[in-house]
Amino acid sequence: MNNTVNKIALVTLIFCTGVQAAPLKKEKPKMTPALEHYTQDLVLGDLWQRPGLSPRDRSIVTLSVLVAKNQNHDLPFYLNRALDSGLKPGEIAELITHLAFYSDWANATAADAAARAVFAERKIDMAQLPPAKPPPLPLDEKKEAARAKGVDENFGKTAPGVVKYTTDALFRDLWLRPGLAPRDRSLVTVSALVANGQVAQVTYHLNRAMDNGLTEAQASEALTQLAFYAGWPNVFSAMPVFKDVFAQRKE
Amino acid sequence: MNNTVNKIALVTLIFCTGVQAAPLKKEKPKMTPALEHYTQDLVLGDLWQRPGLSPRDRSIVTLSVLVAKNQNHDLPFYLNRALDSGLKPGEIAELITHLAFYSDWANATAADAAARAVFAERKIDMAQLPPAKPPPLPLDEKKEAARAKGVDENFGKTAPGVVKYTTDALFRDLWLRPGLAPRDRSLVTVSALVANGQVAQVTYHLNRAMDNGLTEAQASEALTQLAFYAGWPNVFSAMPVFKDVFAQRKE
Amino acid sequence: MNNTVNKIALVTLIFCTGVQAAPLKKEKPKMTPALEHYTQDLVLGDLWQRPGLSPRDRSIVTLSVLVAKNQNHDLPFYLNRALDSGLKPGEIAELITHLAFYSDWANATAADAAARAVFAERKIDMAQLPPAKPPPLPLDEKKEAARAKGVDENFGKTAPGVVKYTTDALFRDLWLRPGLAPRDRSLVTVSALVANGQVAQVTYHLNRAMDNGLTEAQASEALTQLAFYAGWPNVFSAMPVFKDVFAQRKE
Repeated sequence: MNNTVNKIALVTLIFCTGVQAAPLKKEKPKMTPALEHYTQDLVLGDLWQRPGLSPRDRSIVTLSVLVAKNQNHDLPFYLNRALDSGLKPGEIAELITHLAFYSDWANATAADAAARAVFAERKIDMAQLPPAKPPPLPLDEKKEAARAKGVDENFGKTAPGVVKYTTDALFRDLWLRPGLAPRDRSLVTVSALVANGQVAQVTYHLNRAMDNGLTEAQASEALTQLAFYAGWPNVFSAMPVFKDVFAQRKE
Repeated sequence: MNNTVNKIALVTLIFCTGVQAAPLKKEKPKMTPALEHYTQDLVLGDLWQRPGLSPRDRSIVTLSVLVAKNQNHDLPFYLNRALDSGLKPGEIAELITHLAFYSDWANATAADAAARAVFAERKIDMAQLPPAKPPPLPLDEKKEAARAKGVDENFGKTAPGVVKYTTDALFRDLWLRPGLAPRDRSLVTVSALVANGQVAQVTYHLNRAMDNGLTEAQASEALTQLAFYAGWPNVFSAMPVFKDVFAQRKE
Repeated sequence: MNNTVNKIALVTLIFCTGVQAAPLKKEKPKMTPALEHYTQDLVLGDLWQRPGLSPRDRSIVTLSVLVAKNQNHDLPFYLNRALDSGLKPGEIAELITHLAFYSDWANATAADAAARAVFAERKIDMAQLPPAKPPPLPLDEKKEAARAKGVDENFGKTAPGVVKYTTDALFRDLWLRPGLAPRDRSLVTVSALVANGQVAQVTYHLNRAMDNGLTEAQASEALTQLAFYAGWPNVFSAMPVFKDVFAQRKE
């Protein structure tokens, strides 16, 4: 009986927390045949091997989608993959914190728990994570003043609280945390926007991403990664906006 | 061994059901440092203390988002917070039932299970919850006839089933249940619409909310609460609609 | 103690995996009274009994929504209902694989796990599921060439990777898998689009669905099913598009 209880408890722990060895390994079919085939041959065996985007960047895109869509069942596998691809634990902690604002608080809270479980399993010391309040990156005061002025003119009377936190918590705090490069924060943001179908916000953030160093080729290949992880419909709705931004930046 | 099994089972129960004491308490860091800092100092320590919206209203907004986004991991904490802020068990049951229609059936079913677990833990008697079929609030027949006529003209031939249930199940039944005030039902509805990015439906329901007694200042501050719990992008897509509704009602 | 541990483990297993007998049975109230009433009398007792759409089609719509919205808690009940309504295990496996592309990979992966658990419980042999690479259905080369040309002209330079996989993996592979009829694949696709609020993609896929044999009456009644499972706001945003498609096809 003890043994049975033990097994039930362990199986449950694995099923619920997802804290387990990579669930997509090749050993034996873990899915129904069609999905297993596409996962192994098309996604892991083909998409992830494409040269247009590094495995580290593909991990940033994929983790951002999983957090933005609250898909905790797949987080342990892709958190491990991200760490194996060169994304640092501190960058993952910053990615999740960034999405507390750009996806939402509850998704980030759940992802944070999943990340801590993976960190513990890999004996990653929490002390190496970025501190609560690190010295900020330098701010481009002129650019930020222009952004703040535009938002305040638009929405200062509609939602003064939103406008205040947008300045104080986002652009004068979160974006200046040094634990994740601005270019990577932008890739996180754009990936989450596409995953959540928030096309109206893509123009601003894709431009910001490219100002922060994301190349057109990388943005294009991020769409390919997103087709699988955010789904075809979201990508087909985002492509016209990417197309417009690419064109406008060449004018 | 027994002890280990016991611990695994309990840890699993806590991880999976979230039925546990408030996970966001101050005692020791439960998250990675950055997210812990923002959660304690910015969200719980600042946002929730703002005078523009009562803790009870903030709980309505937050619970509505969590149900609408199927974020069950955080429901126990915020259900307890809602009860501590003056929201009654019966109002919570009605909020969840309302979202069966305005978010979807499966999310409400899952939230209902989470609510019953919290009610049981707090020894709340199920008998004090609103009955299945209470005597309805009075109906404004003229206003409802106008609404029904508009929808029927628009969609009566496209989806007669939808039109029928919209009248029979929503406006002549659900909205008349006395267990949650119409103003609160509207706040639930608008919060869920913003959380799900359903901007196209906000104009009608924000107007209805303000007709039902939600003030412009409360609606504005609800956007601030939503920035954190529904995420910045959803709020930036909703703000232009709120701005238009506020302006139109002043003409 | 053993007994307590055993109970905790089992309760947890049930709560987390949802692997349990139908949670919506009539025996005793499993929900708070209002939601229980609407679930039993309005949804299961009325909506599902309407003649405009078969229980098998309602199951296709409902499962598609649950997968597209990552609502795994309700999957076991509706997977069993689908099997009881005549949907074959292989069709369910194909439905889930289809949604790997039309919702996203992580949702499909989680749903696949839920389906395998239900299949195992019902002693369904995995060997009867469609193989990884079945002989494909015949392709309408002319129609497909026109589709590919349009997409390539539009987005070939924006995201060549997306365009490539759209042709190779979707229209020359996935859609030709014989395990699920094209008409059913279209019903899956349209249901997922409505559930995820992806209105911009509905026009193409609803036309394709009707080309594949979905009647206007069935599409209309699918909206009624979707009102409950994808929620009223998503259906109210989709109805104008359905209305336009219905009208255009009569011109």
